[in-house]
Amino acid sequence: MKVFIIGVGLIGGSFALDLKSVLEQVEIYGIDSDEHHLDKALELGLIDHKAKFEDLIGADLVYLAIPVDASLEVLPIILDLVNDNCVVTDAGSTKEHLCAKVADHPKRRNFLAGHPISGTEFSGPTAAIHGLFKDKTSIICEVEKTAFKLQERALEIFKAIGMRIRYMDPKSHDRHIAYVSHLSHISSFMLGKTVLDKEKNERDIFDLAGSGFASTVRLAKSSPAMWTPIFNLNKKNVIETLDEYISNLKYFRKLMQEDNFEEVFNEMEKTNHIREVLNGISNNEELKILENGK
Amino acid sequence: MKVFIIGVGLIGGSFALDLKSVLEQVEIYGIDSDEHHLDKALELGLIDHKAKFEDLIGADLVYLAIPVDASLEVLPIILDLVNDNCVVTDAGSTKEHLCAKVADHPKRRNFLAGHPISGTEFSGPTAAIHGLFKDKTSIICEVEKTAFKLQERALEIFKAIGMRIRYMDPKSHDRHIAYVSHLSHISSFMLGKTVLDKEKNERDIFDLAGSGFASTVRLAKSSPAMWTPIFNLNKKNVIETLDEYISNLKYFRKLMQEDNFEEVFNEMEKTNHIREVLNGISNNEELKILENGK
Repeated sequence: MKVFIIGVGLIGGSFALDLKSVLEQVEIYGIDSDEHHLDKALELGLIDHKAKFEDLIGADLVYLAIPVDASLEVLPIILDLVNDNCVVTDAGSTKEHLCAKVADHPKRRNFLAGHPISGTEFSGPTAAIHGLFKDKTSIICEVEKTAFKLQERALEIFKAIGMRIRYMDPKSHDRHIAYVSHLSHISSFMLGKTVLDKEKNERDIFDLAGSGFASTVRLAKSSPAMWTPIFNLNKKNVIETLDEYISNLKYFRKLMQEDNFEEVFNEMEKTNHIREVLNGISNNEELKILENGK
Repeated sequence: MKVFIIGVGLIGGSFALDLKSVLEQVEIYGIDSDEHHLDKALELGLIDHKAKFEDLIGADLVYLAIPVDASLEVLPIILDLVNDNCVVTDAGSTKEHLCAKVADHPKRRNFLAGHPISGTEFSGPTAAIHGLFKDKTSIICEVEKTAFKLQERALEIFKAIGMRIRYMDPKSHDRHIAYVSHLSHISSFMLGKTVLDKEKNERDIFDLAGSGFASTVRLAKSSPAMWTPIFNLNKKNVIETLDEYISNLKYFRKLMQEDNFEEVFNEMEKTNHIREVLNGISNNEELKILENGK
């Protein structure tokens, strides 16, 4: 099978590594706008060959793992170029615009809209790791719009690398993911900013900050090049989550200001319920990320 | 050495475990308002004996690890009861009120105000783990007010269990810790609340949430009984950090609303600098917490 990875970073590179371990015969071609990334991916053995868009005609599977605004531009071009028997899938964190963009494309049936719920705060080909997708969820949108045998090819690979499949419409995906992923990134970035602004003497942060702080600001290490277009394309939903988050923070502040610590206690106790909700996202998974993170 | 642990939970219990591994001859007595915790601590081998306040006269070291409001009430009583050669130290996350409370106590020289920057989101004696304090910072306040040989006794133990010592005045401690610890807990609790409120169908959270979300809301599992008094006693500083955090979130929202994604990018890129700041709080430390966490 000839697989083309567009964007040989954390996601594309990790996907390539896993493909090599589950497929007996696979040749991996890399395409990237950054020539250094491409050389690095080759050196690290993530890809077997560097390639260009004109080579896509030979692809059996194309995996698109670039910032979501770039995907919007590039996906129609890729669909134009691939053969009728090729499946093109993507890993973008917003789905509504992308699905709309290719809704009327003559090769819409060659596209499977996807979003693997996996990643780390690191980026680029050197961040690629084995097993990134194991036990993670793969969200698939508008599955019915993809040719059946092409769905099958992509989904079998996703399952082989350890993912569980969930189907969702693009609008719901973008609304839910704003809460459980996009908002977390903003809360983390702004927490990092608040502390950095205050603590000019960084030695003090280092000495006083424990693993709790490290955990809450971990996502503030994430790539702005990846996240800016996500916030842009999911603007409406993200602003809605931000408004609710800010409103909850203000309410907590108001309770404190009014010395209503009984209610402060109740607020926290109710939220402790997140323990049970998070049991599915085990510490083991986070552990693995941390172990593998560079 | 006879050591009395007041509060045999995560911190007190972990301290007891480490003491046993670094001191050749140590007898550990536990005091706790919760009889079940005391029985559990005995069963787990955290303590050797259950004890009462009237036994404190025989103590060489008293380790106070209870909620900060309870410490305020109990510390003067403990100081009344201990012998002249006993050092009493504590693990509370706020220091200004506690130091003020005993400023004029006749046995002020027997007290060493401390705060180990270590913990997990779990609580109670079953949460106690070996090595919780290894490579962590121990903040000591008003060290000059403690009798020299008593400082020495406590600090030698802190160093023996792997802590690095930092000295700080209580006001600065409370101001800094509001940023790097207390605010993180509120941001995490309110993030958890925002998502729980929205996602009534919890299956959706489970499926869509990845390790990033788990990391940012980890602290929302923390004990309200421990955290409510901390927010109460550090109210002024915490409200100040909350105001700055809310203001930063609003600014980010405004940039998004105005489609100023160039500035959204810049904000995140500046905050990426947190990477270098956090290098000291290595993944290994967080790893260990996660590994040991139940």
